[in-house]
Amino acid sequence: MVQVIVLNGGSSSGKTGIARCLQAILPEPWIRLSVDDLVDALPSALLDSDSGISFGQHGEVGVSGGFREVERAWMAGVAAMARAGARVIFDDVFLSGSASQERTRASLAGLEVLWVGVHCDPVIAAGREIARGDRATGMAASQAEVVHQGAVYDVEVDTSHTPSLDCARVIAAQLSLVASRRR
Amino acid sequence: MVQVIVLNGGSSSGKTGIARCLQAILPEPWIRLSVDDLVDALPSALLDSDSGISFGQHGEVGVSGGFREVERAWMAGVAAMARAGARVIFDDVFLSGSASQERTRASLAGLEVLWVGVHCDPVIAAGREIARGDRATGMAASQAEVVHQGAVYDVEVDTSHTPSLDCARVIAAQLSLVASRRR
Amino acid sequence: MVQVIVLNGGSSSGKTGIARCLQAILPEPWIRLSVDDLVDALPSALLDSDSGISFGQHGEVGVSGGFREVERAWMAGVAAMARAGARVIFDDVFLSGSASQERTRASLAGLEVLWVGVHCDPVIAAGREIARGDRATGMAASQAEVVHQGAVYDVEVDTSHTPSLDCARVIAAQLSLVASRRR
Amino acid sequence: MVQVIVLNGGSSSGKTGIARCLQAILPEPWIRLSVDDLVDALPSALLDSDSGISFGQHGEVGVSGGFREVERAWMAGVAAMARAGARVIFDDVFLSGSASQERTRASLAGLEVLWVGVHCDPVIAAGREIARGDRATGMAASQAEVVHQGAVYDVEVDTSHTPSLDCARVIAAQLSLVASRRR
Repeated sequence: MVQVIVLNGGSSSGKTGIARCLQAILPEPWIRLSVDDLVDALPSALLDSDSGISFGQHGEVGVSGGFREVERAWMAGVAAMARAGARVIFDDVFLSGSASQERTRASLAGLEVLWVGVHCDPVIAAGREIARGDRATGMAASQAEVVHQGAVYDVEVDTSHTPSLDCARVIAAQLSLVASRRR
Repeated sequence: MVQVIVLNGGSSSGKTGIARCLQAILPEPWIRLSVDDLVDALPSALLDSDSGISFGQHGEVGVSGGFREVERAWMAGVAAMARAGARVIFDDVFLSGSASQERTRASLAGLEVLWVGVHCDPVIAAGREIARGDRATGMAASQAEVVHQGAVYDVEVDTSHTPSLDCARVIAAQLSLVASRRR
Repeated sequence: MVQVIVLNGGSSSGKTGIARCLQAILPEPWIRLSVDDLVDALPSALLDSDSGISFGQHGEVGVSGGFREVERAWMAGVAAMARAGARVIFDDVFLSGSASQERTRASLAGLEVLWVGVHCDPVIAAGREIARGDRATGMAASQAEVVHQGAVYDVEVDTSHTPSLDCARVIAAQLSLVASRRR
Repeated sequence: MVQVIVLNGGSSSGKTGIARCLQAILPEPWIRLSVDDLVDALPSALLDSDSGISFGQHGEVGVSGGFREVERAWMAGVAAMARAGARVIFDDVFLSGSASQERTRASLAGLEVLWVGVHCDPVIAAGREIARGDRATGMAASQAEVVHQGAVYDVEVDTSHTPSLDCARVIAAQLSLVASRRR
């Protein structure tokens, strides 16, 4: 039984929309968490390049040891939620590709995880970034491909020309398949 | 010279994204206004079915005379902004189709308006509504087609399979065409 | 009959809370507008120090001619809303004190205006800025006093130790007084 | 060493503002979590009176077994974050007074907790609810006193006439005192 669905994709690739659609179509209740929730929870002293996480004017993300330390504890909590029975859809951005995936994998050790790659054409993601109007210009294009470098998935979707709800259906079908196989 | 761009389309058809993309690609500064801004400005006593505007659990919108009165004054102000030189992208929902368009047309009398129809397949709009997670379920499907009944446009776009930025480019091209014709 | 209530005060002085309380206690419907609405409506090209309005890291606000031009047209629209019958509570920040008030007064020429000074101790406003967490640190303290320099009011309130609702009641009482005097 | 600061108080009592001020004045990084974060993470199927948590028109909160089950797992995760080294400020609402406190206490078993009561005069909290404009009318008044029934605290503050930052300072002083005592 899958306990955590990890959605990995660049900024503006459509992960949040897919996560909401998954919540709507899956028969069991799933909660939706994201590293953005951690960023919202931080003190302003950690929203700074030297000691925390920072977001540059052109969409670059800087992460320091101080942020990593808090993130590690926060991820331990997310894993504990899943171990305690909450079904978790986790929206992630593997800024360092496979190295990031290994870090997330280590945090989720012992849990049944469905790894999902959420791809999006960088040009289309950059267009969505403009349409959203709430992200630094450049983040979508700079993350679109690097976040998938070396990452390994159970299922991959591409939101470039496929609506979030259809992507969610593909993921839900894979979830059923995995569930039936492992029975 | 076009002074107001009216974007008409149902809920979750993608008007706001197109408006932001238009702001990004048009060489002159355009401001973005929407009837949602009026709703945000209202006292809570007007967010009620009997005396104002109300939003039902299944996405139905109820509008009373009290709301219409304030809306008429507010629209007179939007028109005055354009007359005073502000370029305005106005995001509208013609809940009563051509009758709504006539009301908007009367408010904007004397101004050069580019009328844009923003279409979206009702099924796709309904999917986006789920992905957004901040609108009552049913609003997208119920508005998708009625808002276009009898409406007349200078240019029409369909966001079902075309990104916001590409739709904005089509509108911007029409704007240039109109400008060159009217010179 | 007062057509526009102008609330002037520095950032984090409590103007928005007072405006919402006024909407709740006044018997007629009033709409709430703010220069922040204009900022939200701007293209990103105007959110820049050289050509528009910009917000520094320490709360300083920079305004250029490009912004002033759009603002003038937008204020003409706000005045037109009031002339067309909408009762308007306008939340303003007189960044240049009396010079700003003159600019607002000119925009609202011919309208019956109630001018309200919203004072707040700079130290208390700075504390609220921290508690809100959504404004640049320093804006509250830097604006607290300069926005009132040379400004002339019909009624003044101080939110340092008085809740928003009580301040709204003082303003509403003055509104009734003015109404009865002018009858 | 205190690992979790629990702030308990009714809606609109000022807990979030105090939490942000604590983050600003405490020398170590603390993260801010709230049961509201869980509500935001839920699928819409759990935002319903029969199977989840629901918010009535007059501010009443209904909670079912389905919500409690997810909440229990989520709280296990919050506790795990603190055990893994994250310092957590937890914003809670003891809807059932001491029974709620016991449930939170059980979730945080083994952790050093500072229990903080955040009081606010019901009339003043109700006024703030109007000034905020984003909560159902009635929630503040109905929760103001019941959430403290039978609750036991290490420190209590009253936001009726004391700014958030000053309340945060009282809590920070108590935190230092506890730290020095337990050394």
